[in-house]
Amino acid sequence: MKASAKGMNAIDIIHLHEWRHVFKLDPDKDIGDSALEQICMSGTDAIMVGGSSGITFENTVDLMSRIRRFELPVVQEVSDLDAVVPGFDAYFIPMVLNTTSTEWLVGQHKRAIEQYGYMMPWELIVPEGYIILNPEATAAKVSEANAQLTAKEAAAYAHIADKLMRLPIIYAEYSGTFGDMETVKQIKAAASDAHVLYGGGIATIEQAQAAAAVADTIVVGNIVYDNLQAGLDTVAAVKGSST
Amino acid sequence: MKASAKGMNAIDIIHLHEWRHVFKLDPDKDIGDSALEQICMSGTDAIMVGGSSGITFENTVDLMSRIRRFELPVVQEVSDLDAVVPGFDAYFIPMVLNTTSTEWLVGQHKRAIEQYGYMMPWELIVPEGYIILNPEATAAKVSEANAQLTAKEAAAYAHIADKLMRLPIIYAEYSGTFGDMETVKQIKAAASDAHVLYGGGIATIEQAQAAAAVADTIVVGNIVYDNLQAGLDTVAAVKGSST
Repeated sequence: MKASAKGMNAIDIIHLHEWRHVFKLDPDKDIGDSALEQICMSGTDAIMVGGSSGITFENTVDLMSRIRRFELPVVQEVSDLDAVVPGFDAYFIPMVLNTTSTEWLVGQHKRAIEQYGYMMPWELIVPEGYIILNPEATAAKVSEANAQLTAKEAAAYAHIADKLMRLPIIYAEYSGTFGDMETVKQIKAAASDAHVLYGGGIATIEQAQAAAAVADTIVVGNIVYDNLQAGLDTVAAVKGSST
Repeated sequence: MKASAKGMNAIDIIHLHEWRHVFKLDPDKDIGDSALEQICMSGTDAIMVGGSSGITFENTVDLMSRIRRFELPVVQEVSDLDAVVPGFDAYFIPMVLNTTSTEWLVGQHKRAIEQYGYMMPWELIVPEGYIILNPEATAAKVSEANAQLTAKEAAAYAHIADKLMRLPIIYAEYSGTFGDMETVKQIKAAASDAHVLYGGGIATIEQAQAAAAVADTIVVGNIVYDNLQAGLDTVAAVKGSST
Protein backbone atom coordinates (compact mmCIF):
# COMPACT_ATOMS: atom_id res chain seq x y z
CA MET A 1 0.00 0.00 0.00
CA LYS A 2 2.97 2.34 -0.03
CA ALA A 3 2.36 5.14 -2.46
CA SER A 4 6.03 5.59 -3.26
CA ALA A 5 6.30 2.47 -5.44
CA LYS A 6 8.08 3.53 -8.60
CA GLY A 7 6.23 3.53 -11.88
CA MET A 8 2.79 3.34 -10.33
CA ASN A 9 0.42 6.12 -9.64
CA ALA A 10 -2.10 6.37 -6.85
CA ILE A 11 -4.93 4.90 -8.92
CA ASP A 12 -3.01 1.67 -9.44
CA ILE A 13 -1.71 1.55 -5.89
CA ILE A 14 -5.17 1.73 -4.37
CA HIS A 15 -6.60 -0.64 -7.01
CA LEU A 16 -9.37 1.85 -7.77
CA HIS A 17 -10.69 -0.09 -10.73
CA GLU A 18 -11.33 -3.14 -8.54
CA TRP A 19 -13.31 -1.25 -5.93
CA ARG A 20 -16.90 -2.42 -5.52
CA HIS A 21 -17.52 -1.17 -1.99
CA VAL A 22 -15.89 1.44 0.22
CA PHE A 23 -16.71 2.88 3.61
CA LYS A 24 -16.49 6.64 4.08
CA LEU A 25 -15.60 7.65 7.62
CA ASP A 26 -16.00 11.14 9.04
CA PRO A 27 -13.18 12.40 11.28
CA ASP A 28 -15.70 14.61 13.06
CA LYS A 29 -17.73 11.60 14.26
CA ASP A 30 -16.77 9.23 17.06
CA ILE A 31 -16.21 5.59 16.31
CA GLY A 32 -15.01 2.99 18.82
CA ASP A 33 -12.08 0.65 18.31
CA SER A 34 -14.26 -2.42 17.99
CA ALA A 35 -16.53 -0.82 15.40
CA LEU A 36 -13.52 0.45 13.45
CA GLU A 37 -11.95 -3.00 13.46
CA GLN A 38 -15.16 -4.58 12.16
CA ILE A 39 -15.37 -1.97 9.39
CA CYS A 40 -11.75 -2.41 8.33
CA MET A 41 -11.94 -6.23 8.46
CA SER A 42 -15.33 -6.37 6.71
CA GLY A 43 -13.95 -7.14 3.29
CA THR A 44 -14.60 -3.63 1.98
CA ASP A 45 -12.12 -2.49 -0.67
CA ALA A 46 -10.95 0.73 0.94
CA ILE A 47 -11.69 3.47 3.44
CA MET A 48 -12.30 7.06 2.40
CA VAL A 49 -11.75 9.67 5.10
CA GLY A 50 -13.62 12.93 4.79
CA GLY A 51 -16.69 14.95 5.62
CA SER A 52 -18.52 18.19 4.96
CA SER A 53 -17.92 20.02 8.25
CA GLY A 54 -15.78 19.99 11.39
CA ILE A 55 -12.78 18.42 9.64
CA THR A 56 -9.43 19.34 11.21
CA PHE A 57 -5.85 18.18 10.90
CA GLU A 58 -6.06 16.69 14.39
CA ASN A 59 -9.20 14.61 13.98
CA THR A 60 -8.05 13.47 10.53
CA VAL A 61 -4.60 12.35 11.65
CA ASP A 62 -6.15 10.54 14.60
CA LEU A 63 -8.61 8.60 12.44
CA MET A 64 -5.98 7.83 9.79
CA SER A 65 -3.52 6.42 12.27
CA ARG A 66 -6.20 4.17 13.77
CA ILE A 67 -7.19 2.87 10.31
CA ARG A 68 -3.54 2.34 9.41
CA ARG A 69 -3.35 -0.62 11.77
CA PHE A 70 -5.26 -2.53 9.08
CA GLU A 71 -4.12 -3.52 5.62
CA LEU A 72 -6.61 -1.87 3.29
CA PRO A 73 -6.08 1.30 1.22
CA VAL A 74 -6.96 4.57 2.92
CA VAL A 75 -7.59 7.74 0.96
CA GLN A 76 -8.36 11.25 2.09
CA GLU A 77 -11.09 13.18 0.37
CA VAL A 78 -9.86 16.74 0.70
CA SER A 79 -12.42 19.37 1.65
CA ASP A 80 -10.15 21.77 3.52
CA LEU A 81 -6.50 22.42 2.72
CA ASP A 82 -5.66 22.94 6.38
CA ALA A 83 -6.77 19.39 7.16
CA VAL A 84 -4.58 17.61 4.61
CA VAL A 85 -2.61 14.93 6.46
CA PRO A 86 0.50 13.23 5.02
CA GLY A 87 0.46 9.45 4.92
CA PHE A 88 -2.67 8.57 2.97
CA ASP A 89 -2.37 6.33 -0.09
CA ALA A 90 -4.09 8.92 -2.24
CA TYR A 91 -5.80 12.29 -2.03
CA PHE A 92 -9.16 12.62 -3.76
CA ILE A 93 -9.83 16.17 -4.88
CA PRO A 94 -13.47 17.02 -5.60
CA MET A 95 -14.27 19.21 -8.60
CA VAL A 96 -17.97 20.01 -8.46
CA LEU A 97 -19.27 19.88 -12.03
CA ASN A 98 -22.72 21.31 -11.30
CA THR A 99 -21.64 24.14 -9.03
CA THR A 100 -22.73 27.68 -9.90
CA SER A 101 -19.46 29.05 -8.54
CA THR A 102 -16.07 28.54 -10.18
CA GLU A 103 -14.64 28.34 -6.63
CA TRP A 104 -15.72 24.69 -6.35
CA LEU A 105 -14.58 23.72 -9.80
CA VAL A 106 -11.13 25.31 -10.10
CA GLY A 107 -10.83 28.30 -7.73
CA GLN A 108 -9.80 26.59 -4.50
CA HIS A 109 -7.61 24.24 -6.50
CA LYS A 110 -5.76 27.15 -8.04
CA ARG A 111 -5.01 28.67 -4.63
CA ALA A 112 -3.88 25.31 -3.26
CA ILE A 113 -1.46 24.88 -6.14
CA GLU A 114 -0.10 28.38 -5.66
CA GLN A 115 0.43 27.64 -1.96
CA TYR A 116 2.05 24.21 -2.39
CA GLY A 117 3.98 25.03 -5.54
CA TYR A 118 6.60 22.42 -6.36
CA MET A 119 5.73 20.49 -3.17
CA MET A 120 2.44 19.35 -4.72
CA PRO A 121 2.48 15.51 -4.70
CA TRP A 122 0.82 15.14 -8.10
CA GLU A 123 1.37 11.37 -8.24
CA LEU A 124 -0.91 10.95 -5.19
CA ILE A 125 -3.70 13.21 -6.41
CA VAL A 126 -6.87 11.82 -7.93
CA PRO A 127 -9.43 14.38 -9.12
CA GLU A 128 -13.09 13.44 -8.73
CA GLY A 129 -15.83 14.92 -10.89
CA TYR A 130 -18.65 15.44 -8.39
CA ILE A 131 -22.23 15.58 -9.53
CA ILE A 132 -24.25 16.64 -6.48
CA LEU A 133 -27.82 15.44 -6.81
CA ASN A 134 -29.54 16.11 -3.48
CA PRO A 135 -30.43 19.82 -3.19
CA GLU A 136 -31.06 19.45 0.55
CA ALA A 137 -27.58 18.13 1.36
CA THR A 138 -25.00 20.26 3.15
CA ALA A 139 -22.59 19.49 0.30
CA ALA A 140 -25.03 20.99 -2.21
CA LYS A 141 -25.48 24.16 -0.18
CA VAL A 142 -21.81 24.64 0.63
CA SER A 143 -20.73 24.11 -2.97
CA GLU A 144 -23.59 26.22 -4.40
CA ALA A 145 -24.60 23.34 -6.64
CA ASN A 146 -27.54 23.35 -9.00
CA ALA A 147 -28.51 19.90 -7.76
CA GLN A 148 -31.99 19.81 -9.31
CA LEU A 149 -30.90 17.89 -12.41
CA THR A 150 -32.69 15.64 -14.87
CA ALA A 151 -31.01 12.34 -15.68
CA LYS A 152 -30.06 13.80 -19.07
CA GLU A 153 -28.42 16.84 -17.50
CA ALA A 154 -26.52 14.65 -15.04
CA ALA A 155 -25.35 12.51 -17.96
CA ALA A 156 -24.16 15.62 -19.81
CA TYR A 157 -21.99 16.54 -16.81
CA ALA A 158 -20.68 12.98 -16.79
CA HIS A 159 -19.69 13.34 -20.45
CA ILE A 160 -17.80 16.54 -19.61
CA ALA A 161 -15.97 14.80 -16.76
CA ASP A 162 -15.19 11.71 -18.82
CA LYS A 163 -14.45 13.06 -22.28
CA LEU A 164 -13.47 16.71 -21.95
CA MET A 165 -11.78 16.74 -18.52
CA ARG A 166 -10.76 13.06 -18.54
CA LEU A 167 -11.25 12.75 -14.78
CA PRO A 168 -10.55 9.26 -13.41
CA ILE A 169 -13.58 9.33 -11.08
CA ILE A 170 -17.16 10.53 -11.39
CA TYR A 171 -18.94 10.71 -8.04
CA ALA A 172 -22.75 10.64 -8.14
CA GLU A 173 -23.48 12.16 -4.74
CA TYR A 174 -26.90 12.00 -3.11
CA SER A 175 -25.43 12.58 0.36
CA GLY A 176 -28.12 11.95 2.99
CA THR A 177 -30.75 10.34 0.79
CA PHE A 178 -30.99 7.30 -1.45
CA GLY A 179 -30.93 8.49 -5.03
CA ASP A 180 -32.60 7.93 -8.37
CA MET A 181 -30.98 4.82 -9.85
CA GLU A 182 -32.04 5.74 -13.40
CA THR A 183 -29.98 8.93 -13.12
CA VAL A 184 -26.97 6.98 -11.83
CA LYS A 185 -27.40 4.49 -14.67
CA GLN A 186 -27.27 7.29 -17.24
CA ILE A 187 -24.18 8.76 -15.57
CA LYS A 188 -22.51 5.36 -15.78
CA ALA A 189 -23.52 5.00 -19.44
CA ALA A 190 -21.87 8.35 -20.22
CA ALA A 191 -18.60 7.33 -18.55
CA SER A 192 -16.41 5.49 -21.04
CA ASP A 193 -13.28 5.57 -18.92
CA ALA A 194 -14.10 7.22 -15.62
CA HIS A 195 -14.82 5.03 -12.61
CA VAL A 196 -18.29 5.81 -11.21
CA LEU A 197 -18.82 6.07 -7.46
CA TYR A 198 -22.30 6.23 -6.00
CA GLY A 199 -22.85 7.69 -2.55
CA GLY A 200 -25.95 8.56 -0.54
CA GLY A 201 -28.38 6.97 1.84
CA ILE A 202 -27.35 3.32 1.52
CA ALA A 203 -28.73 1.64 4.66
CA THR A 204 -29.95 -1.77 3.53
CA ILE A 205 -28.76 -4.76 1.54
CA GLU A 206 -31.37 -4.00 -1.13
CA GLN A 207 -30.18 -0.42 -1.56
CA ALA A 208 -26.57 -1.56 -1.69
CA GLN A 209 -27.40 -4.05 -4.42
CA ALA A 210 -29.51 -1.57 -6.39
CA ALA A 211 -26.71 1.01 -6.37
CA ALA A 212 -24.02 -1.58 -7.10
CA ALA A 213 -26.01 -2.68 -10.15
CA VAL A 214 -25.61 0.75 -11.77
CA ALA A 215 -22.37 2.18 -10.33
CA ASP A 216 -18.84 0.74 -10.29
CA THR A 217 -18.39 1.35 -6.57
CA ILE A 218 -20.80 2.12 -3.75
CA VAL A 219 -19.79 4.40 -0.91
CA VAL A 220 -21.37 3.53 2.44
CA GLY A 221 -21.15 6.20 5.11
CA ASN A 222 -23.61 7.38 7.72
CA ILE A 223 -25.25 4.04 8.39
CA VAL A 224 -22.15 2.71 10.19
CA TYR A 225 -22.69 5.37 12.86
CA ASP A 226 -26.41 4.63 13.19
CA ASN A 227 -26.52 0.88 12.76
CA LEU A 228 -23.13 -0.77 12.44
CA GLN A 229 -24.42 -4.22 11.55
CA ALA A 230 -26.61 -2.86 8.75
CA GLY A 231 -23.54 -1.08 7.40
CA LEU A 232 -21.40 -4.20 7.59
CA ASP A 233 -24.09 -6.22 5.80
CA THR A 234 -23.74 -4.02 2.69
CA VAL A 235 -20.27 -5.44 2.05
CA ALA A 236 -21.31 -9.04 1.47
CA ALA A 237 -24.36 -7.77 -0.41
CA VAL A 238 -22.23 -6.40 -3.24
CA LYS A 239 -18.82 -8.01 -3.09
CA GLY A 240 -20.13 -11.20 -4.68
CA SER A 241 -22.00 -9.46 -7.49
CA SER A 242 -20.64 -7.77 -10.60
CA THR A 243 -21.91 -4.94 -12.84
CA MET B 1 -6.48 14.50 -43.41
CA LYS B 2 -9.72 12.54 -43.25
CA ALA B 3 -10.84 12.37 -39.66
CA SER B 4 -12.57 9.05 -40.09
CA ALA B 5 -9.37 6.99 -40.19
CA LYS B 6 -9.88 4.10 -37.81
CA GLY B 7 -7.85 3.89 -34.65
CA MET B 8 -6.70 7.50 -34.75
CA ASN B 9 -8.17 10.42 -32.97
CA ALA B 10 -8.26 14.01 -34.07
CA ILE B 11 -5.06 14.94 -32.25
CA ASP B 12 -3.07 12.40 -34.24
CA ILE B 13 -4.80 13.16 -37.51
CA ILE B 14 -3.97 16.87 -37.33
CA HIS B 15 -0.44 16.13 -36.00
CA LEU B 16 -0.99 18.53 -33.13
CA HIS B 17 2.25 17.64 -31.40
CA GLU B 18 4.26 18.68 -34.46
CA TRP B 19 2.66 22.09 -34.76
CA ARG B 20 5.06 25.00 -34.40
CA HIS B 21 3.02 27.63 -36.25
CA VAL B 22 -0.62 28.02 -37.15
CA PHE B 23 -2.66 30.78 -38.71
CA LYS B 24 -6.02 31.65 -37.18
CA LEU B 25 -8.49 33.00 -39.69
CA ASP B 26 -11.70 34.81 -38.81
CA PRO B 27 -14.79 33.95 -40.89
CA ASP B 28 -16.13 37.45 -40.21
CA LYS B 29 -13.19 39.10 -41.98
CA ASP B 30 -12.65 39.27 -45.74
CA ILE B 31 -9.62 37.64 -47.28
CA GLY B 32 -8.89 37.44 -51.00
CA ASP B 33 -8.08 34.25 -52.90
CA SER B 34 -4.48 35.23 -53.49
CA ALA B 35 -3.87 36.06 -49.83
CA LEU B 36 -5.55 32.84 -48.74
CA GLU B 37 -3.40 30.82 -51.12
CA GLN B 38 -0.23 32.43 -49.81
CA ILE B 39 -1.29 31.69 -46.22
CA CYS B 40 -2.16 28.06 -46.92
CA MET B 41 1.02 27.49 -48.97
CA SER B 42 3.26 29.32 -46.49
CA GLY B 43 4.50 26.20 -44.75
CA THR B 44 2.35 26.81 -41.66
CA ASP B 45 1.26 23.62 -39.90
CA ALA B 46 -2.48 24.18 -39.86
CA ILE B 47 -5.29 26.68 -40.09
CA MET B 48 -7.62 27.42 -37.18
CA VAL B 49 -10.98 28.94 -38.09
CA GLY B 50 -12.73 31.00 -35.47
CA GLY B 51 -13.32 34.41 -33.94
CA SER B 52 -14.95 36.25 -31.09
CA SER B 53 -17.89 37.88 -32.87
CA GLY B 54 -19.94 37.77 -36.07
CA ILE B 55 -19.33 34.06 -36.62
CA THR B 56 -22.13 32.32 -38.55
CA PHE B 57 -22.65 28.96 -40.21
CA GLU B 58 -22.55 30.67 -43.61
CA ASN B 59 -19.32 32.60 -43.27
CA THR B 60 -17.66 29.57 -41.61
CA VAL B 61 -18.66 27.08 -44.30
CA ASP B 62 -17.53 29.54 -46.96
CA LEU B 63 -14.08 30.01 -45.43
CA MET B 64 -13.66 26.29 -44.73
CA SER B 65 -14.47 25.27 -48.28
CA ARG B 66 -11.97 27.76 -49.65
CA ILE B 67 -9.22 26.51 -47.31
CA ARG B 68 -10.08 22.90 -48.18
CA ARG B 69 -8.56 23.34 -51.63
CA PHE B 70 -5.19 23.08 -49.89
CA GLU B 71 -3.62 20.12 -48.14
CA LEU B 72 -3.07 21.30 -44.60
CA PRO B 73 -5.20 20.45 -41.51
CA VAL B 74 -8.11 22.77 -40.80
CA VAL B 75 -9.75 22.94 -37.41
CA GLN B 76 -12.71 24.91 -36.16
CA GLU B 77 -12.48 26.64 -32.82
CA VAL B 78 -16.06 26.57 -31.66
CA SER B 79 -17.45 29.73 -30.10
CA ASP B 80 -21.10 29.36 -31.08
CA LEU B 81 -22.94 26.08 -31.42
CA ASP B 82 -25.06 27.44 -34.28
CA ALA B 83 -21.91 28.00 -36.36
CA VAL B 84 -20.51 24.47 -36.11
CA VAL B 85 -19.81 23.27 -39.65
CA PRO B 86 -19.28 19.59 -40.55
CA GLY B 87 -16.11 18.77 -42.45
CA PHE B 88 -13.32 20.12 -40.28
CA ASP B 89 -10.51 17.78 -39.21
CA ALA B 90 -11.13 18.61 -35.56
CA TYR B 91 -13.21 20.85 -33.33
CA PHE B 92 -11.39 22.76 -30.63
CA ILE B 93 -13.63 23.47 -27.65
CA PRO B 94 -12.47 26.28 -25.35
CA MET B 95 -12.85 25.82 -21.60
CA VAL B 96 -11.93 29.10 -19.94
CA LEU B 97 -9.97 28.26 -16.80
CA ASN B 98 -9.88 31.78 -15.39
CA THR B 99 -13.49 32.69 -16.02
CA THR B 100 -15.61 33.88 -13.10
CA SER B 101 -18.68 32.20 -14.60
CA THR B 102 -19.17 28.44 -14.83
CA GLU B 103 -20.90 29.08 -18.18
CA TRP B 104 -17.53 29.34 -19.92
CA LEU B 105 -15.99 26.39 -18.18
CA VAL B 106 -18.72 23.73 -18.35
CA GLY B 107 -22.16 25.37 -18.71
CA GLN B 108 -22.36 25.85 -22.47
CA HIS B 109 -20.67 22.49 -22.94
CA LYS B 110 -23.35 20.78 -20.88
CA ARG B 111 -26.13 22.29 -22.98
CA ALA B 112 -24.36 21.37 -26.22
CA ILE B 113 -24.03 17.77 -25.09
CA GLU B 114 -27.71 17.65 -24.10
CA GLN B 115 -28.64 19.01 -27.52
CA TYR B 116 -26.39 16.73 -29.58
CA GLY B 117 -26.79 13.65 -27.40
CA TYR B 118 -25.54 10.51 -29.10
CA MET B 119 -24.68 12.50 -32.26
CA MET B 120 -21.73 14.13 -30.50
CA PRO B 121 -18.59 13.30 -32.55
CA TRP B 122 -16.33 12.80 -29.52
CA GLU B 123 -13.42 11.48 -31.59
CA LEU B 124 -13.15 14.86 -33.36
CA ILE B 125 -13.35 16.99 -30.23
CA VAL B 126 -10.26 18.51 -28.65
CA PRO B 127 -10.82 20.53 -25.48
CA GLU B 128 -8.57 23.54 -24.96
CA GLY B 129 -7.82 24.98 -21.54
CA TYR B 130 -7.88 28.72 -22.18
CA ILE B 131 -6.01 31.10 -19.94
CA ILE B 132 -7.08 34.59 -20.99
CA LEU B 133 -4.40 37.09 -20.10
CA ASN B 134 -5.38 40.41 -21.68
CA PRO B 135 -8.14 42.07 -19.64
CA GLU B 136 -8.91 44.48 -22.50
CA ALA B 137 -9.63 41.78 -25.06
CA THR B 138 -13.15 41.04 -26.25
CA ALA B 139 -12.58 37.41 -25.31
CA ALA B 140 -11.83 38.41 -21.71
CA LYS B 141 -14.97 40.52 -21.46
CA VAL B 142 -17.27 38.03 -23.14
CA SER B 143 -16.02 35.13 -21.02
CA GLU B 144 -16.00 37.18 -17.79
CA ALA B 145 -12.37 36.23 -17.23
CA ASN B 146 -10.25 37.39 -14.34
CA ALA B 147 -7.42 38.12 -16.77
CA GLN B 148 -5.26 40.14 -14.36
CA LEU B 149 -3.04 37.21 -13.38
CA THR B 150 0.46 36.90 -12.03
CA ALA B 151 2.73 34.37 -13.74
CA LYS B 152 2.32 32.13 -10.69
CA GLU B 153 -1.47 32.26 -10.90
CA ALA B 154 -1.38 31.52 -14.63
CA ALA B 155 0.90 28.56 -13.93
CA ALA B 156 -1.53 27.27 -11.28
CA TYR B 157 -4.31 27.26 -13.89
CA ALA B 158 -1.97 25.44 -16.25
CA HIS B 159 -1.39 22.76 -13.59
CA ILE B 160 -5.16 22.34 -13.23
CA ALA B 161 -5.55 21.96 -17.00
CA ASP B 162 -2.62 19.59 -17.33
CA LYS B 163 -2.82 17.45 -14.19
CA LEU B 164 -6.38 17.59 -12.89
CA MET B 165 -8.36 18.00 -16.12
CA ARG B 166 -5.78 16.38 -18.42
CA LEU B 167 -6.65 18.70 -21.29
CA PRO B 168 -4.57 18.10 -24.45
CA ILE B 169 -4.13 21.83 -25.12
CA ILE B 170 -3.43 24.88 -22.98
CA TYR B 171 -3.99 28.14 -24.82
CA ALA B 172 -2.20 31.21 -23.42
CA GLU B 173 -4.35 33.92 -24.98
CA TYR B 174 -3.29 37.56 -25.10
CA SER B 175 -5.64 38.31 -27.99
CA GLY B 176 -4.88 41.78 -29.38
CA THR B 177 -1.61 42.44 -27.58
CA PHE B 178 1.81 40.81 -27.37
CA GLY B 179 2.08 39.12 -24.00
CA ASP B 180 4.48 38.59 -21.13
CA MET B 181 6.83 35.82 -22.20
CA GLU B 182 7.81 35.01 -18.59
CA THR B 183 4.17 34.16 -17.89
CA VAL B 184 3.99 31.95 -20.97
CA LYS B 185 7.24 30.26 -19.94
CA GLN B 186 5.79 29.39 -16.53
CA ILE B 187 2.62 28.06 -18.16
CA LYS B 188 4.76 25.86 -20.39
CA ALA B 189 6.82 24.68 -17.39
CA ALA B 190 3.60 23.62 -15.63
CA ALA B 191 2.40 21.60 -18.61
CA SER B 192 3.84 18.08 -18.43
CA ASP B 193 1.63 16.65 -21.16
CA ALA B 194 -0.54 19.41 -22.54
CA HIS B 195 0.50 21.13 -25.75
CA VAL B 196 0.90 24.89 -25.18
CA LEU B 197 -0.42 27.35 -27.75
CA TYR B 198 0.46 31.03 -27.54
CA GLY B 199 -1.72 33.62 -29.23
CA GLY B 200 -1.77 37.39 -29.20
CA GLY B 201 -0.24 40.32 -31.02
CA ILE B 202 2.42 38.53 -33.05
CA ALA B 203 3.30 40.96 -35.85
CA THR B 204 7.05 40.62 -36.34
CA ILE B 205 9.71 37.97 -36.81
CA GLU B 206 11.17 38.86 -33.41
CA GLN B 207 7.85 38.43 -31.63
CA ALA B 208 7.24 35.14 -33.43
CA GLN B 209 10.63 33.85 -32.33
CA ALA B 210 10.22 35.06 -28.75
CA ALA B 211 6.85 33.33 -28.41
CA ALA B 212 8.06 30.18 -30.17
CA ALA B 213 10.94 29.97 -27.71
CA VAL B 214 8.51 29.52 -24.79
CA ALA B 215 5.38 27.93 -26.31
CA ASP B 216 4.99 24.75 -28.35
CA THR B 217 2.97 26.48 -31.06
CA ILE B 218 2.39 30.10 -31.97
CA VAL B 219 -0.94 31.26 -33.33
CA VAL B 220 -0.74 34.14 -35.80
CA GLY B 221 -3.96 35.94 -36.52
CA ASN B 222 -4.78 39.60 -37.04
CA ILE B 223 -1.52 40.58 -38.73
CA VAL B 224 -2.44 38.71 -41.92
CA TYR B 225 -5.35 41.11 -42.39
CA ASP B 226 -3.22 44.19 -41.70
CA ASN B 227 0.08 43.26 -43.30
CA LEU B 228 0.05 39.94 -45.14
CA GLN B 229 3.78 39.80 -45.80
CA ALA B 230 4.62 40.40 -42.14
CA GLY B 231 2.28 37.55 -41.27
CA LEU B 232 3.85 35.21 -43.83
CA ASP B 233 7.33 36.06 -42.55
CA THR B 234 6.45 34.61 -39.12
CA VAL B 235 6.33 31.12 -40.62
CA ALA B 236 9.96 30.91 -41.67
CA ALA B 237 10.94 32.67 -38.47
CA VAL B 238 9.87 29.74 -36.32
CA LYS B 239 9.66 26.65 -38.51
CA GLY B 240 13.43 26.22 -38.43
CA SER B 241 13.77 26.67 -34.68
CA SER B 242 12.94 24.30 -31.84
CA THR B 243 11.95 24.84 -28.23
